[in-house]
Amino acid sequence: MNALQVAADAADGTSAAAAAASTATFSRTGVASLLRRRFFYSPAFDIYGGVSGLYDYGPPACAVKNNVVALWRQHFVLEEGMLELEGTCLTPEPVLRTSGHVEKFTDLLVEDAETGAPFRADHLLEEHLVATVEAGTLTPERAEEAAALRARLDELDEAEMATALKAWAVKAPETGNDLAPPYAFNLMFKTQIGPKAGVVGYLRPETAQGIFVNFKRLLDYNGGRMPFAAAQIGLSFRNEISPRAGVLRVREFLQAEIEHFVHPQHKGHPKFASVADRVVNLFPRAQQLTTRVAVPMAVGDAVAAGTIANETLGYFIARTDMFAEKMGLTLEHVRFRQHLEHEMAHYASDCWDLEVNTSYQWIECAGIADRACFDLTSHSTAAKVELTVREVFDTPQTDELWVAVPNKGALGKSFKKDAQKIMAALAAADQDTLGAYAATSGAGEPVVVAVDGGLASGDATATVEPSMLSFKRVTQTVHGRNYYPSVIEPSFGIGRLLYCLWEHAYFVRPPSGDAGAAAAAAAANAPPAAVLRLPAEVAPVKVILLPLMRQAVFNGRLGEAADALRAAGLSIRVDDSGQSIGRRYARADEVGTPFGVTVDHQTVADGSITVRDRDTTAQVRCPSIAAAVEVVRRCCAGLGSWADVTAEYPVVAATAEGEEEGQA
Amino acid sequence: MNALQVAADAADGTSAAAAAASTATFSRTGVASLLRRRFFYSPAFDIYGGVSGLYDYGPPACAVKNNVVALWRQHFVLEEGMLELEGTCLTPEPVLRTSGHVEKFTDLLVEDAETGAPFRADHLLEEHLVATVEAGTLTPERAEEAAALRARLDELDEAEMATALKAWAVKAPETGNDLAPPYAFNLMFKTQIGPKAGVVGYLRPETAQGIFVNFKRLLDYNGGRMPFAAAQIGLSFRNEISPRAGVLRVREFLQAEIEHFVHPQHKGHPKFASVADRVVNLFPRAQQLTTRVAVPMAVGDAVAAGTIANETLGYFIARTDMFAEKMGLTLEHVRFRQHLEHEMAHYASDCWDLEVNTSYQWIECAGIADRACFDLTSHSTAAKVELTVREVFDTPQTDELWVAVPNKGALGKSFKKDAQKIMAALAAADQDTLGAYAATSGAGEPVVVAVDGGLASGDATATVEPSMLSFKRVTQTVHGRNYYPSVIEPSFGIGRLLYCLWEHAYFVRPPSGDAGAAAAAAAANAPPAAVLRLPAEVAPVKVILLPLMRQAVFNGRLGEAADALRAAGLSIRVDDSGQSIGRRYARADEVGTPFGVTVDHQTVADGSITVRDRDTTAQVRCPSIAAAVEVVRRCCAGLGSWADVTAEYPVVAATAEGEEEGQA
Repeated sequence: MNALQVAADAADGTSAAAAAASTATFSRTGVASLLRRRFFYSPAFDIYGGVSGLYDYGPPACAVKNNVVALWRQHFVLEEGMLELEGTCLTPEPVLRTSGHVEKFTDLLVEDAETGAPFRADHLLEEHLVATVEAGTLTPERAEEAAALRARLDELDEAEMATALKAWAVKAPETGNDLAPPYAFNLMFKTQIGPKAGVVGYLRPETAQGIFVNFKRLLDYNGGRMPFAAAQIGLSFRNEISPRAGVLRVREFLQAEIEHFVHPQHKGHPKFASVADRVVNLFPRAQQLTTRVAVPMAVGDAVAAGTIANETLGYFIARTDMFAEKMGLTLEHVRFRQHLEHEMAHYASDCWDLEVNTSYQWIECAGIADRACFDLTSHSTAAKVELTVREVFDTPQTDELWVAVPNKGALGKSFKKDAQKIMAALAAADQDTLGAYAATSGAGEPVVVAVDGGLASGDATATVEPSMLSFKRVTQTVHGRNYYPSVIEPSFGIGRLLYCLWEHAYFVRPPSGDAGAAAAAAAANAPPAAVLRLPAEVAPVKVILLPLMRQAVFNGRLGEAADALRAAGLSIRVDDSGQSIGRRYARADEVGTPFGVTVDHQTVADGSITVRDRDTTAQVRCPSIAAAVEVVRRCCAGLGSWADVTAEYPVVAATAEGEEEGQA
Repeated sequence: MNALQVAADAADGTSAAAAAASTATFSRTGVASLLRRRFFYSPAFDIYGGVSGLYDYGPPACAVKNNVVALWRQHFVLEEGMLELEGTCLTPEPVLRTSGHVEKFTDLLVEDAETGAPFRADHLLEEHLVATVEAGTLTPERAEEAAALRARLDELDEAEMATALKAWAVKAPETGNDLAPPYAFNLMFKTQIGPKAGVVGYLRPETAQGIFVNFKRLLDYNGGRMPFAAAQIGLSFRNEISPRAGVLRVREFLQAEIEHFVHPQHKGHPKFASVADRVVNLFPRAQQLTTRVAVPMAVGDAVAAGTIANETLGYFIARTDMFAEKMGLTLEHVRFRQHLEHEMAHYASDCWDLEVNTSYQWIECAGIADRACFDLTSHSTAAKVELTVREVFDTPQTDELWVAVPNKGALGKSFKKDAQKIMAALAAADQDTLGAYAATSGAGEPVVVAVDGGLASGDATATVEPSMLSFKRVTQTVHGRNYYPSVIEPSFGIGRLLYCLWEHAYFVRPPSGDAGAAAAAAAANAPPAAVLRLPAEVAPVKVILLPLMRQAVFNGRLGEAADALRAAGLSIRVDDSGQSIGRRYARADEVGTPFGVTVDHQTVADGSITVRDRDTTAQVRCPSIAAAVEVVRRCCAGLGSWADVTAEYPVVAATAEGEEEGQA
């Protein structure tokens, strides 16, 4: 989906819609510090100086990513019975020529005329316009011109960009040098497949094409039945000119894409009723141009009102909203923004972006586009394979057709060897053409027949006298036809969703009432008590398992608890580091560990054990390790909540064995 | 792991060990037909003519792959508490220069001198040798020469290969043309990262390097504690010269690698006792050179006998064997083959391959190598970052050290500006050097000091008279030291494991006693009744859900059952295609669906429902949909077996509603 590109610009603040102010506050610096400190990410190959736009996922982010992918697969693929496939990243050039990427998947690049340093032209121009307007020296007319230009930055072609850069006297940053003329830079990574220099390949810029080229097999696998959806989760690659904005604009990223194939005239969805009442934040074109505020609407109402074009689009908007909620985003900061006409990719007939509000304002994390039949028709033409579906009519249709009736003898006499070609052209002509020929012929005029490949003389047409050619009307019964399905494509950028999740889940726990403890923490230069409020289902580790302190007496029960938790399929981390229990809880809170299980003296004595909740820091005492495991298992599988737990087991005070001790 | 490369050759039949005959029979053609027919794979981009060495995974293979990866993660990462990370495929050149891949990751390529068609030199030579020997016209001496050459094909360098090709008069296949001289072809895909032509990148040929470059962060994440393991599951890429052998030798493949970091002098494993009794098929060097048969041995005995070099290697061999069993391989056809000396990669000190017997003979699917400290020392040197671990001694050690005592005034007078350099050289010299200097000095001789960067005169050494320099012995207490950990690397090729799984799981169900039915099937050209006996945990779809026939009366219960199965997290497929029930079961058997749940008239009447087992075709009737879901859920989670099910519910006869009807 090229759409990600567009919205990345929105995230950078280009689009007017994205610039609509957000009232929310998110702690970008707090989150950044946490992500770095606890190895959620590192710049890839940083011991070698790193490569911009490439990041490694450390253990906590990698685990959350795996869990979010599993959740996505459960929510979309399994619950919907989609066909998941996995294609290759390496893609031969002809495929991407057909999809338009070889020609059109470019950004305008401009170089420092002296040093050759490369920049993205639209970014440079935008920064210049913003700075110039902010300087406040422009006339009102010029300021308006600047605003107008800024609003259509992504529409400028090479020549227009060159003119604009010159007109606004944009120079290279830092050096202040002149800029060389901008040119289109293709964003695909190019390589050579096999040892022969001629075989050009690219790393795929989207996973969608791998589904389209397999359409026939997928349809066959589905028993020929429509509609159906295929999905793919995999890496895509974009050779950004100068990636910034950290993990939001990277050169290698995980996509999860769905291609839902439907009859172009019947875009209803069989399960639409199940989501019609879901209220989502919609930000249609009209609102973007007027009130600039999204409106909560039931998806059923939005489809009925024509705001959302069809049920299938509406269905996926609702399901995407549900997914966003399940993975832990705050729905108040989630909206669906309809593309403005000029934003839409060449293939799209409608598109809604899932946008998530963060400290970078609204970030596009998914796009739900109606691609019509652009892809399947393009690949059919290029690969000479008919990627269509056979539709059998409920009742056969009767059509009146024109048929050409050539006088073979007369044609042969006049046209010799060309006669065959003329008859083939007449046989292949479509109904509109034949109708026009018939009208001419009926009027007694000679018919000018276009001949594929031309005549022996080199002429492209043959002029055929009425005596050699007549036309008749025949009745034909049609039992069905082949059609190109339309495609509704929900496409997700997993990495961006994760970043938004960190910002939404992050909070700083207020210091406890104990002034002494707070002062001690401050004196120790301790970082703020950051917590990631991740849903248990996506948390990287489900349980931090602690002995009250580092003493051999706890080892037996500790091993028992570890085995029981692991046997339940729960990922755990044992922290017997000897630090205070409060400090160990705090470290687990930072990476979003939802539960703490602590082996204390009472556990040793009677087998009872405490379970602590990350968000409230409240704890309960379960009568046995097995009971504690069951509590955690149910919460992590989405079968219960902390409220259920405290209803079953009484909350116990944080005694000397609990939170308080840690703060001492 | 370059090891995969080596064993791929073994799979092609190069290695003498691999050539040891297998008595097993596998149905390569039956499996191939099934994989193609049911869209397990398709050649990637085949509507565009395809690209050799690239395959897409269709829905059944994609699902099994996801399940095997999840199983691997559970078995290794979660149960062992490993740190999983995810690095990028795009890798800048300096990293792969350090790892040796830029220089050494090559195959010898030879071209048809006239057409330029490329071939792998060792494959051409081997085919030629085999054909020549088989022709039977060689003298016994020449035949022996051919055998000897064949055994060391992968050791030949460019010059030796050129000589051998000439000596044996090898010509280009098909054309019979002469061959151009062979040259080393690098197997990495090259690309350009960013818009500047100078930034060369490659697609990673293995995931291991992404772990090594993050070693410091991982150690820190683990609280500085050793030993620990990191894991990565991700794509790797190899630009094979002319890939054959279908999905066994591909250009893009999924690896799952573990780097277990240990103290180089302490390679014990804390959990070794838990696997010591596991008996595995070991094929050590000695047996390869003598009996040519693997021997079943308890891992504990093998380590005690020194056959396996250390506990950590032994631990991972046992755990790998357990994983192979869990994922569905037949252990009788699984062995661990030790690398012969000449096979081992430059960095390895010992290596055992997991080999799986198939119709292609023994295929290497994983390697468990002791890489010693090769990688971390190489990256430390190249990136100038010390990738070491601090070891604190239990009791501080006291060392006697040599210290140089320069006479600064005299040195300054004699050597002027060079004096500083000489003193720096003495301060930086290691103990061996200083000891030698002290001996010379003690003998009253002038000391020749090597000076880094040389003197002003251009000389590399300074000759220092004894009067200007003395040495003394000092006592120093050492509390610890920094060391480079060793790395034990279990590395898995997921795609190969999957292929072996298909061959092991495949069987053809004998035709039922009903001669009429068998004849009917034969007449209808029906394919044989192929079944994939996949473990329920890895099966692509867990349940085929069927209405007895296509009638509205079944719809209610069908929907109920579908919802209940999906809510239990089970992937299901509903087949209401109207075909006979036997035919629908057969289609599900082909893709390894372990259970069939059928809504029949009795279900409509009383809610009871049948569950059918794929392998035995036996079925039980459960009193309710909920009971059936529980039966299936337990089996799919590895908590129960079909034997448990039939113990709980009586097996019912396949009545007119069951198997038999389908055969009518």
